[in-house]
Formats: sequence, structure tokens, C-alpha cells
Amino acid sequence: MVLLSGGLDSATTLAIAAHDGCRCFALSFAYGQRNAAEIGAARRVAAAVGAAEHRCFTLDLAAIAASALTDPSAPLPANSDSGAAGIPPTYVPARNTVFLALALAWAETLDARSIYIGVNAVDYPGYPDCRPRFIESFEQTANLATRAGVEGGGFRIMTPLIALTKAGIISRGVELGLDYSLTVSCYRADEQGRACGECDACRFRRRGFDEAGVPDPTAYQSGGVC
Amino acid sequence: MVLLSGGLDSATTLAIAAHDGCRCFALSFAYGQRNAAEIGAARRVAAAVGAAEHRCFTLDLAAIAASALTDPSAPLPANSDSGAAGIPPTYVPARNTVFLALALAWAETLDARSIYIGVNAVDYPGYPDCRPRFIESFEQTANLATRAGVEGGGFRIMTPLIALTKAGIISRGVELGLDYSLTVSCYRADEQGRACGECDACRFRRRGFDEAGVPDPTAYQSGGVC
Repeated sequence: MVLLSGGLDSATTLAIAAHDGCRCFALSFAYGQRNAAEIGAARRVAAAVGAAEHRCFTLDLAAIAASALTDPSAPLPANSDSGAAGIPPTYVPARNTVFLALALAWAETLDARSIYIGVNAVDYPGYPDCRPRFIESFEQTANLATRAGVEGGGFRIMTPLIALTKAGIISRGVELGLDYSLTVSCYRADEQGRACGECDACRFRRRGFDEAGVPDPTAYQSGGVC
Repeated sequence: MVLLSGGLDSATTLAIAAHDGCRCFALSFAYGQRNAAEIGAARRVAAAVGAAEHRCFTLDLAAIAASALTDPSAPLPANSDSGAAGIPPTYVPARNTVFLALALAWAETLDARSIYIGVNAVDYPGYPDCRPRFIESFEQTANLATRAGVEGGGFRIMTPLIALTKAGIISRGVELGLDYSLTVSCYRADEQGRACGECDACRFRRRGFDEAGVPDPTAYQSGGVC
């Protein structure tokens, strides 16, 4: 089971799970996010990596969880420092808890035992639900919650990117033959999935390609690298 | 925040939260369950108890989580013993994890800090996600997952029924003036919310009224007590 948003991190996570020898079931969410172009990207990535199945689960998280990522009137962060303190406005209350809980439901139904999520060292200074302590605690909860956990052979939450920087993630994906032009990271991507080049997600992504020494394959709205 | 299915247990939980002095926000789920009459019951109970708001959140849990409770072709348990060993066929993979995660998202958005859930001693020999150990672990995970947990003043998962039998739950609700005729417990309730009188949920409920010495106000499909 792989949580697949269609962004760079989760696409790399899927490629790693496939390389680990897993038969991969990819799960995406249409949850009212602004960057809905990611869902089309997720579909393309799942096909390219050869996932056994890809599902997109719809839930109106925006109706109950306030965030700049789901509220069309809220400003999105731009030009903030990757090391800035505090929780960013794109934080969605309990998002990874909700996503992992739904992944757990499908994993138990499929008799899958490994749940891959692309949390990493770029995210977790800011997002509490990307920290290793949260992941460990969720794994424990999952094994208390479920038949599979109680009857033995419980779940493992796999975080293959946890110690990697953006450049490290990209280098790993390139080694595995992943085509990053299929992925969308931008908060303000247009319908064709082209990136704005200016939001924080675009800036961190571009810097990652620079630092990895890999040409940036991202399609930008302006037609060139901003 | 109160998880409100519209059954006897969650209705009592809501009455207790109101009695605790809480301004109550009740959350129900339309998740593809067979006993959809519960949702109408939840609406009536929320109004009767005076909840500040009641929301019904739709998610197609049946699409990813296999269970006799969501699969119309699966047989439902009847005439099994309340103390029977093992996990019942009505177990839905990760259901309470998913429901608590969504309640957590809404609670953080509302700045609520107490999440009430009606798990109790009747359920937890069978359902792993009704056990006190699961609840404690989820609370810990919730406080690692969220801004509120990280910044202090975290969440508490409240389980006021945890040590009660069905009769004890009913006695407490009657003390608080709860009208149990508004609630629906039956797995096979008809559109008017009338109970079959034969499934396990009906049998445990009727036995609870008997043991509490309270007349059973349930409307049965046969028109009388079976």
C-alpha cells in the first residue's frame, strides 16, 4: 500500500516500494485540495511504475479541516525559507492521520502489511504529522486497531525517504528510472499540471534538482525555468 | 466533539457530554453501512440533546474496507452469544481509526479538545478498535499529529461508557432524560428506523432494557416485542 499524491516525494516512494519487490496498490485522495492536478499526475505515475492498482478516494476534508491548502480564499506561502520555524499555513488538521487510517482500512482488506508514505526531512520541521515520532505512534495504534494487528503479522509504516533531503530523494528516483516530468508538486498548478515556479513547493523542488545535479524536467506555466 | 452513530451507545455518550457542560458538536458518517436508518436517528438525537451542530460526513468506506456491515450480500450475525470469542463479521477494518481521525480534523479546526466516543465493555471483547489500549494509543498519536498537540493543550479521547454494560448505559441515559425511542441499533432497520428484533444488535439492546428494568421503547417491524 503506497500513499500517492502525485508529487515528487510520493512518486519516489512508489518507485522504492516497487524496487523493494512489492506488488503495489497506490492510494490517492481527492480531498478538496487546490492542487488537484496532482491526481492526474498520480494516475500517470502509478501506470509508469507498474502499480497493480491505483485508487482515488474522495472525501470532503475541506468541509471539516481548515487550511490554506483547501480554502480557495487563503493566501499560499511563497518565498518562505525551507528552514523557517513553526507550522506552515498549508498544514491540514490531522491530514496524515486520516490518510494513513484509510490506507490501513484498504491494506487490511487486501491483506497487505506494508504501508509506504513519503514523509521526509524537508517536511518534518514544519508538519507535526510528518515526524518520525508520529509515524511510530501511528504504527502502534494501527496494530492495536486491527484484526491483523491483534492476530499477529501486523502492519509496518514504511518511510524510505525519512532521512533524505529533496536532492537525495531526486537522486534515488533517478537511479530507479523514475520520470519526474510525470509528477506535480506546485500548489497552483494549472489544469495541464504546469507549475507556477514561484510557490514554496516549486522553489524547494527546483532547488532539489539543482543540488542533485539533475536537469529539472518540470513544465512551467511561463514555458521556461523561472 | 462527539461521534454519533444514532445508536443507543453514542446517543448516551452525547447526553453525558452535554451533562459534562460541553458545547457539543456531533459527527456522523454515511459510509455505506447497511443500517443507514441510524443517520436519521442521529439527526433526531442531536436535536433532542441540543447539540450546537450536527454534521454527517460522507465517505465510501465500503469501497476499500470489506465487512458484513457494508457488503449487502454478506450474512449478518444473529443468535450469537454476546461473550462469543473472536472478531465478529461486522468488524470493519480500521473503522474507529478512520472515524476518530476525521473527528480529530474537525475538532482541531473548531478548537475543541475533547473527543467523545461510545466504546464500551460490550464491544471490546470482539472489536479491537473498541479496546481501552487502542483508545489510549490513538490519543497519543493524535497529540503527536496535530498543531494543538505540539503547541500544548492537546486532545483527550473521552470514553464515558468504557466500563458499562448495556444495562448500565441505559440506566445512565434514563437518568439524563434521554429518549431511547429516538435511537436505532438494528443492523436491518427499515426506512422508518423500525428494528427487526432478531439480529445481535437487537438482542443485546433488548436484554439491556430488561436488565436495567426499563420498558423497551424500541419500535419493532412486527409491531410488538418479538
